[in-house]
Amino acid sequence: MTAHATHSVIGTAGAEGIDDVEAYMQRLGQAARHAATAMRRVDTASKNAALAAMARHLEAARAEVLAANARDLDRGRANGLDAALLDRLALDDARLQGMIDGLAQVAALPDPVGEIDGLRAQPSGIQVGQMRVPLGVIGIIYESRPNVTLEAASLCLKSGNACILRGGSEASESNAAIAECIRRGLDEAGLPSAAVQVVATTDRAAVGRLISMPEYVDVIIPRGGKSLIERITREASVPVIKHLDGVCHVYLDASADLEKALAIAVNAKTQRYGTCNTLETLLVDEPLAASLLPRLASAYAEHGVELRGCERTRAILGDGVVPASEADWEAEYLAPVLAIRVVDGVEEAMAHIERYGSRHTDAIVTENYSLARRFMTEVDSSSVIVNASTRFADGFEYGLGAEIGISTDRLHARGPVGLEGLTTRKYVVFGDGQIRS
Amino acid sequence: MTAHATHSVIGTAGAEGIDDVEAYMQRLGQAARHAATAMRRVDTASKNAALAAMARHLEAARAEVLAANARDLDRGRANGLDAALLDRLALDDARLQGMIDGLAQVAALPDPVGEIDGLRAQPSGIQVGQMRVPLGVIGIIYESRPNVTLEAASLCLKSGNACILRGGSEASESNAAIAECIRRGLDEAGLPSAAVQVVATTDRAAVGRLISMPEYVDVIIPRGGKSLIERITREASVPVIKHLDGVCHVYLDASADLEKALAIAVNAKTQRYGTCNTLETLLVDEPLAASLLPRLASAYAEHGVELRGCERTRAILGDGVVPASEADWEAEYLAPVLAIRVVDGVEEAMAHIERYGSRHTDAIVTENYSLARRFMTEVDSSSVIVNASTRFADGFEYGLGAEIGISTDRLHARGPVGLEGLTTRKYVVFGDGQIRS
Repeated sequence: MTAHATHSVIGTAGAEGIDDVEAYMQRLGQAARHAATAMRRVDTASKNAALAAMARHLEAARAEVLAANARDLDRGRANGLDAALLDRLALDDARLQGMIDGLAQVAALPDPVGEIDGLRAQPSGIQVGQMRVPLGVIGIIYESRPNVTLEAASLCLKSGNACILRGGSEASESNAAIAECIRRGLDEAGLPSAAVQVVATTDRAAVGRLISMPEYVDVIIPRGGKSLIERITREASVPVIKHLDGVCHVYLDASADLEKALAIAVNAKTQRYGTCNTLETLLVDEPLAASLLPRLASAYAEHGVELRGCERTRAILGDGVVPASEADWEAEYLAPVLAIRVVDGVEEAMAHIERYGSRHTDAIVTENYSLARRFMTEVDSSSVIVNASTRFADGFEYGLGAEIGISTDRLHARGPVGLEGLTTRKYVVFGDGQIRS
Repeated sequence: MTAHATHSVIGTAGAEGIDDVEAYMQRLGQAARHAATAMRRVDTASKNAALAAMARHLEAARAEVLAANARDLDRGRANGLDAALLDRLALDDARLQGMIDGLAQVAALPDPVGEIDGLRAQPSGIQVGQMRVPLGVIGIIYESRPNVTLEAASLCLKSGNACILRGGSEASESNAAIAECIRRGLDEAGLPSAAVQVVATTDRAAVGRLISMPEYVDVIIPRGGKSLIERITREASVPVIKHLDGVCHVYLDASADLEKALAIAVNAKTQRYGTCNTLETLLVDEPLAASLLPRLASAYAEHGVELRGCERTRAILGDGVVPASEADWEAEYLAPVLAIRVVDGVEEAMAHIERYGSRHTDAIVTENYSLARRFMTEVDSSSVIVNASTRFADGFEYGLGAEIGISTDRLHARGPVGLEGLTTRKYVVFGDGQIRS
């Protein structure tokens, strides 16, 4: 079945009425709430049809989207944005193709909505299970990358939610052009236009309003720097699914296979420096240190990684290694810098992780069955890994198909958040006239 | 394995240092955070041993607990508490036995901690699954019933959490006596005493501090009246799992079996009046109204239920029925009062539920397969029921074994919250040296 659009398009393109940001956001919220009700009835085929239609419209609008992006880039250069930010902002044919392909990938994912788990008969005769349903209205606040607009829209749509997207002001023209393709796709598939709304004002008051309308918005997902996320979490009256730091550890136990230890320790640090699942502090079991640390140091040197070590590390590697301070154990470098500490066994390693870690992703390398089992049970991180690189902590690598982010929260969703994390479960009860006595 | 208590008992009995509530709550929080770390390592047998030991200590301390309760009741009467509140506060041999039996029931429940779901190999060769782990530290804020102290402690303990319990000041002596039995049980089983801490001050500032220590408390569960819960939700900086209204509906479709319709409509309203899953507004499909409403009215009359009806209801039942106003459609009466509305089919019924309901529990009575399926899919409530009484929306009836409350939130836990709702899931990855390319 298909829900028909019953609400006018608000806020995806024009600037109508945006002088009054409060009222504008309220209209977006109301329209999203109505759209969410309609979206609950939409079947998988209609959602996939909308994704396919969006891909066609984006394909057809390549030139317009790139032109809009060029205007954003020009403005950004004029405003003195730095090169890294301009790079995140920039679209080209390859990135656009990636976005178009991403829509097909989301369409190919299984639809989580409607799945019923654990349906069991109870002593009263009723059958009780839990049905997966959309969360409702999702507000997403992000920064410069315009491809997030399409990614977030496609994941929210596939999971049956309505969403309100607030991108960075530096990407406003790109986002408006992409929003127009999304709107055409929704229209073509007969879905409500307000299922995906892109906030069309760069006024920062819009964010303040978005995070304080629990009557219209069920959850906020901020994507961006830590300060943005902390501010939103502090000020929001709507629940937030958030990602803070990734201070990730690899512990190399004396029982490790040395080749695996070396490969994992190097990969976890050097495969990419700027990601949240990158290794930041390496913990080395004392019996391994003398033989392994020099080999590790030369591998890291090849990659240009600066090492900061504890006293025992420096006793082995020499004074070339910068002494590590307390701040180093807490650092999320996101850079070719690595803290190294020699520890006495798994107990001390776990105590270090408990004290300094951010509960994101932590790994052990060991061939010892009981140690692996213990680390797995006792380390309290969103991903706990035995004998593999921390860089695997990712929605695609975990088989979620895509991710809207990685949650460092404990409630609701923890770790990579895919379609399932954008849903909730309600109880369903099948009876045959049962009453309670 | 068993975690050994490494922290001194704080706050379960004495009034040491409670002049400074801020510092006192901070000590409770720190001790709870440490205890939560230890609790992650505790196996099922040790947790069950603690529950059994608590039951023995409660059995041995029956006289002391009842004496403490008698002092609370005396003080309550002197302070002019009303009869309903005194009844909720009162313990007797039967209620105490119920509490002791409850501990054995929680011990008999399957331990949710450590369960791994969905472990699957990924293309890279790693295996990825999700392991159920404790939430951490749970703060529970409740009102007069002292049995909640034991119930909440046992559920938090069994799910591997540490908890901080803040009961009503009117039950302070009862709660202190029960806390002492809990503490002895924990000690006897070698678990940290701070795994269960009962706030030993009646100063209201303690609540304000408890809900604003995200560094020590992972989630707050308030149990009590709507105003308490709204205030806590508004002021908390810790996530809250909450229960607000239960404005529950039963819709009797023209396709219903009339005897089932009658039985369910009467049971859902009259089996208990004060519960959140009690029927508050009955929706009757127009073709049924003329024949069924008079039978329903006489059944409700036997129970002394006051009816408030729409115009069509009153046209059938006469002017004896009070006209329903907008306020009636929104009312959670928790009393022998029922609003009745005649509607034209399932569409209008669902629109009414969407507009006026509280998304708690809503039921349809129908023999029509497609209608049942549609209602089940489209009604957005924490429990959606076909052909059974709304009164089944309960942790025990749903097979959870026990419940810490019923959540009307959308994130994390929705509907009755049992042991599983007190846990979260982390990703676990089993590799064999894999690195990411």
